[in-house]
Amino acid sequence: MNQITIFSTATVANVCCGFDVLGFALEGIGDEITLTKSSERGIKITKITGADLSLNAKENVVGVAGNAMLDFLKLDYGFEIEIKKGIPLGSGIGGSAASAAAVVFGINQFLEKPLNLQQLANYGMKGEVVASGNEHADNVGPAIFGGFTLIPSYKPFKVVALPTPKDLYATIIHPHIEINTKEAREVLPKNVPLRDAIVQSGNLAGFISALYSSDYELLSRSIKDVLIEPHRKALLPYFDEAKQNALSSGALGFGISGSGPSMFSLCKGKKSAEKVLGNLKKLYYHYDIAIDSHLSKVSGTGSKII
Amino acid sequence: MNQITIFSTATVANVCCGFDVLGFALEGIGDEITLTKSSERGIKITKITGADLSLNAKENVVGVAGNAMLDFLKLDYGFEIEIKKGIPLGSGIGGSAASAAAVVFGINQFLEKPLNLQQLANYGMKGEVVASGNEHADNVGPAIFGGFTLIPSYKPFKVVALPTPKDLYATIIHPHIEINTKEAREVLPKNVPLRDAIVQSGNLAGFISALYSSDYELLSRSIKDVLIEPHRKALLPYFDEAKQNALSSGALGFGISGSGPSMFSLCKGKKSAEKVLGNLKKLYYHYDIAIDSHLSKVSGTGSKII
Repeated sequence: MNQITIFSTATVANVCCGFDVLGFALEGIGDEITLTKSSERGIKITKITGADLSLNAKENVVGVAGNAMLDFLKLDYGFEIEIKKGIPLGSGIGGSAASAAAVVFGINQFLEKPLNLQQLANYGMKGEVVASGNEHADNVGPAIFGGFTLIPSYKPFKVVALPTPKDLYATIIHPHIEINTKEAREVLPKNVPLRDAIVQSGNLAGFISALYSSDYELLSRSIKDVLIEPHRKALLPYFDEAKQNALSSGALGFGISGSGPSMFSLCKGKKSAEKVLGNLKKLYYHYDIAIDSHLSKVSGTGSKII
Repeated sequence: MNQITIFSTATVANVCCGFDVLGFALEGIGDEITLTKSSERGIKITKITGADLSLNAKENVVGVAGNAMLDFLKLDYGFEIEIKKGIPLGSGIGGSAASAAAVVFGINQFLEKPLNLQQLANYGMKGEVVASGNEHADNVGPAIFGGFTLIPSYKPFKVVALPTPKDLYATIIHPHIEINTKEAREVLPKNVPLRDAIVQSGNLAGFISALYSSDYELLSRSIKDVLIEPHRKALLPYFDEAKQNALSSGALGFGISGSGPSMFSLCKGKKSAEKVLGNLKKLYYHYDIAIDSHLSKVSGTGSKII
């Protein structure tokens, strides 16, 4: 085999109660990476379409993640890479993670002894340093594994693939504003009330239990964020109104995707998701704010060969 | 039916990563409550053995929990109650919860339309006000349901029964010192670092996942407490040494039971638990500190008729 193309999906991280540890995969929106085997070692990015990004491997998540994996493998060959960005830059639905996931998943297809998905996530998250300043895997995890993933700890690093209730759909609203990930971190407090930390952990525990038991009622009551959302929502246009709109339209939950500006909802069934998304689109149309929108099943599939 | 005797088990709350929300049931140690139907309304406590507690129903968890349930039910009869305490007072393994669970479970046996376990937990926790100053259900939950329970939220109140891996054993060490629950709360900080809150919630999420998947390795790496233990361990004699001893003897995890002074470990298999408990007993013998000890399977059974 000389060439392969990988599709990796957009993802939603944080998911209200699971700040920095929880994420899930979307369907039908993602990045494509074509890898061509080369006698020259390392990653050489030859073409990028769909976004204005650096071809310099040291400044591009694909280069950083790919080279981290190649350095570990000590291969005597390398890859020329074309990137086709399907996820808008800075949208908050895991664009950098999708590209990073795709390159490590792609390299893995060439190996006689492939790495496991856990190891791929470990190299994939090296790319996140370029995008946000630190290694984190809450987007890379679901981009590689699919479905919901949990990162219970980084030291030692671990990804847990969680079950996904079969009728779970997600909506995405991406208002055309820019939020820098680093800035979104700076609005967060260094300390939080212990009482709030306990409420949040109880909600996350309830959410995990709901995924295993397909308990939509428990899922809905657990998908709340008392730690992060109160500080970040001011960065998003009409957040409170959109949340109220989504919940009263039947969404199980609504929150900030990653560090924004995208906002997501989770819904039971496609019809419910269509209603929720329709009403959200009306709301932002009313306020004359340009948005992209997306509706998909929560995908059980991670990165894949196309 | 005129008379019934209920056994409710001792329980371990908090369980390191699950402060205020997680608990599990022990076997072979608990309180017994005998209820005799009476034409007089309300709860009348006629006898208490095994502990020096008030017979006044307003000052006793059994009276408070029982009367809360009777007030709701508006029964035209009541109960005379004998309490046989098997759980030492102030030991930190859910003595007040066991008594409260037993009385509400017992009253339920007399009803034409029994309440569900969730409702029983709601009335059972009313008794905890007497013991610790506030309603909480992290001990009452497992005392009624058995196994592990999660209280994801109080408003609205909810108990989630979690699965219990079949080879899970617990050890208890109860040093003969007294810790007041209210005092143990006062050593806690009002605010905690956001970073620690996230680590703790990731651990709790990992622990919940481990219970569902019977993943002992994940359970062991998740059962850690960065929020509470650092503040409370100074109240317990040789805590750090005991923890080190238990973990190096093969325990999956070790921590404070409730607000102490009991300490628990979780172990995979009975032999492992025997080894861990044996070494802990040697340690406290060496330091000449009197202890009670207990070893049991994590019980899948909650309150029961005997």
